Amino acid sequence: MTEAFSIGIAGLGTVGVGVVKILQTHADMIAERAGRPIKIVSVTAGNKNKDRGVDISGYDWADSLDNMAQDTRLDAVIEMIGGSEGPVKGMIENALSTGKHVVTANKALLAHHGVALAKLAEENNVTIAYEAAIAGGIPVVKTLREGLSANKVQNIYGILNGTCNYILSDMRETGRDFEVVLKEAQDLGYAEADPSFDVDGIDAAHKLALLGALAFGVEPDFKGLNIEGIRAVGFDDIKYATELGYRIKLLGMASHNDQGYMQTMEPCLVPINSALGSVESVFNAVMMDGDYVDKVMMEGRGAGEGPTASSVVADIIDLAKGNGLPVFSVATNKLKSVDWQSFEDVESCFYLHLKVKDEKGVLAGITACLDKENISVDNFIQRGHDSNGTASIIIETHATNAIAINSAIVDIEALGNVQGKAISMRIEKL
Amino acid sequence: MTEAFSIGIAGLGTVGVGVVKILQTHADMIAERAGRPIKIVSVTAGNKNKDRGVDISGYDWADSLDNMAQDTRLDAVIEMIGGSEGPVKGMIENALSTGKHVVTANKALLAHHGVALAKLAEENNVTIAYEAAIAGGIPVVKTLREGLSANKVQNIYGILNGTCNYILSDMRETGRDFEVVLKEAQDLGYAEADPSFDVDGIDAAHKLALLGALAFGVEPDFKGLNIEGIRAVGFDDIKYATELGYRIKLLGMASHNDQGYMQTMEPCLVPINSALGSVESVFNAVMMDGDYVDKVMMEGRGAGEGPTASSVVADIIDLAKGNGLPVFSVATNKLKSVDWQSFEDVESCFYLHLKVKDEKGVLAGITACLDKENISVDNFIQRGHDSNGTASIIIETHATNAIAINSAIVDIEALGNVQGKAISMRIEKL
Repeated sequence: MTEAFSIGIAGLGTVGVGVVKILQTHADMIAERAGRPIKIVSVTAGNKNKDRGVDISGYDWADSLDNMAQDTRLDAVIEMIGGSEGPVKGMIENALSTGKHVVTANKALLAHHGVALAKLAEENNVTIAYEAAIAGGIPVVKTLREGLSANKVQNIYGILNGTCNYILSDMRETGRDFEVVLKEAQDLGYAEADPSFDVDGIDAAHKLALLGALAFGVEPDFKGLNIEGIRAVGFDDIKYATELGYRIKLLGMASHNDQGYMQTMEPCLVPINSALGSVESVFNAVMMDGDYVDKVMMEGRGAGEGPTASSVVADIIDLAKGNGLPVFSVATNKLKSVDWQSFEDVESCFYLHLKVKDEKGVLAGITACLDKENISVDNFIQRGHDSNGTASIIIETHATNAIAINSAIVDIEALGNVQGKAISMRIEKL
Repeated sequence: MTEAFSIGIAGLGTVGVGVVKILQTHADMIAERAGRPIKIVSVTAGNKNKDRGVDISGYDWADSLDNMAQDTRLDAVIEMIGGSEGPVKGMIENALSTGKHVVTANKALLAHHGVALAKLAEENNVTIAYEAAIAGGIPVVKTLREGLSANKVQNIYGILNGTCNYILSDMRETGRDFEVVLKEAQDLGYAEADPSFDVDGIDAAHKLALLGALAFGVEPDFKGLNIEGIRAVGFDDIKYATELGYRIKLLGMASHNDQGYMQTMEPCLVPINSALGSVESVFNAVMMDGDYVDKVMMEGRGAGEGPTASSVVADIIDLAKGNGLPVFSVATNKLKSVDWQSFEDVESCFYLHLKVKDEKGVLAGITACLDKENISVDNFIQRGHDSNGTASIIIETHATNAIAINSAIVDIEALGNVQGKAISMRIEKL
């Protein structure tokens, strides 16, 4: 058997410890698959003496991130710390500059600095592997970059944040509203104390930016991404969506067609019986639509120690075999820098939820506003007023676009009988 | 850009032509992804002058399979003919022996001769790539062999034959019986004139044998596989299964656990709302269950020009990049030759369908036979007798195993009031 592939692991949180566990329990099997043993040379983390449930006594303790990055014994540094700026970014640059591969789950870092880091990797004949950064245990990076490499990918749809999907599933099952479910999830440790990163769609958008880059051969552009989270989704919306045959999912979408490149992260309605509609709770899923292969769908666990570490170790095995690939499918000088188009004029059906004062003429006013924008109604539900005299009007439109919907909403709100904000969501029939 | 990767394509049927189309339409994109151009040097097929809808005038015409196999200009031979014996096998051996990679969609050949061919490939420092052999456009070989390489895979479930899944879906939707739907599928060209290969489960079993080998690091063993097709599934079974909350699917299953290695191909009931239960019509799907990653599911098109050619070209790109892998994940001298255990004593719930003479004491007799084998009943449906005085009894059992079920059926049939053969199918709750 040839020389071991030597690694240092920076960060011994949930995922870092998971990586150590897999490499310990499956050492022989992994050596067979990699064609050589994987050797953990050194580890480092904030606290050397914390009991992490794995034996790390056989590994050197690196005194600093930079010491690990510069350790000439290492073939690769496994960055399991996270965060898009500061010392972690410095360490990765240091490791790449000194000819080491980097394996990371750090979507924020790659979404913001991916191209610069990929260039640095290329200059040093190494690569950055990040299967674990998108959809946890689901090998979606490998599928896009290699499995579907014969295709011009046209569309990607992704359920990319387990916390959001869990909250939306739980709201539906228990009939509770967002704030209540979020609070419970925080108490149980399923959601962060500051949940913004998850529920406002930022984490999922980091992943979508990387998926778009991989799929279309373009530079990831997080800044150009429309991002809407799930805070505005009420239980009543989930209930009405179910009545119309849909589930509400925080859906990432990226498209490349004659209109250009588009990406958006927003809550959408998808058919209950569709492949994405049946993805519940913490599960993640990605649907890729290639010009020759048609639709390929993958589903699995998007987070957690085992699934995420599974992807990290798969990357390590690939690197040990010598299968290093360009970070974003093609060399950085082949990556296109594109203007991302808005999804606003992309045709789709829409869900509209208006809370109105239950008084004469309201309906006529609303339908006139829709008519003005050439929006025609496919399904209509009106539910009788509550104690405040407020009724809910639910409209499923035929195909239109967000520009028309938003104009209609402005006109409808100007009628003066709408209470609070109108809710509109895209319906993706997939 | 480095030297072109030169290939010869043997066979210009649907898939062979699809490969030519992709390489022509996406030449530049593929060259970027492969890091070098892919060059079709020569082609061959039964009839040189047939119009195939693609321009092949720029390629040499190889006068024989052996001439192509021995063409020293080629880096790889793309075998798109099929068949497990005869000249195709000889050509592949010839190509491997003379140091060429082989890309193929030929599951029959690999299920029967995979290990010998893999050894020959190893001796000559080349490999055999066969993503297209299993589940068409779904990159399941890559996922098992690379994406989930950190895992000991414990279970695989696959819907691997589009013709069977189409027939079962169509029976359910139209209320027609197997023979009627099959006849129509044949008339429409969806099923072969001799449908046995598909509907008797042989094609799907070839694929399962390869999946098992890949997942568990064992030699593929087609001969050791229990194979049952879908001919015995009636529309009434599909109807009763629906009533109980299930779909009937021809399901390939392979497991590795404390009881050993097991594989079987048989019609099973799966929950309607499960990931596999919602795979309809010609679609294929594979669910893989790894010890760290948990379940990963993939769904897509299992056949057809575009999807199958997509997988073939992905393999070609991999080889052009130098990413050749051992045929079955690990070197052949590491492959285990195992005794495949029967699925008979694996615990699961069962579906039983008995047609009985509607007379006194029948039910008491049947339940006594089940009691004797410690089989307890979870759901029971009796549907009134037809004009022949025959009633249908449908039983969903609690967990038991096939040995108990088969013994009970022998006893029940001996009671003398059962008409025709009792139908039993495993229920996989996934």
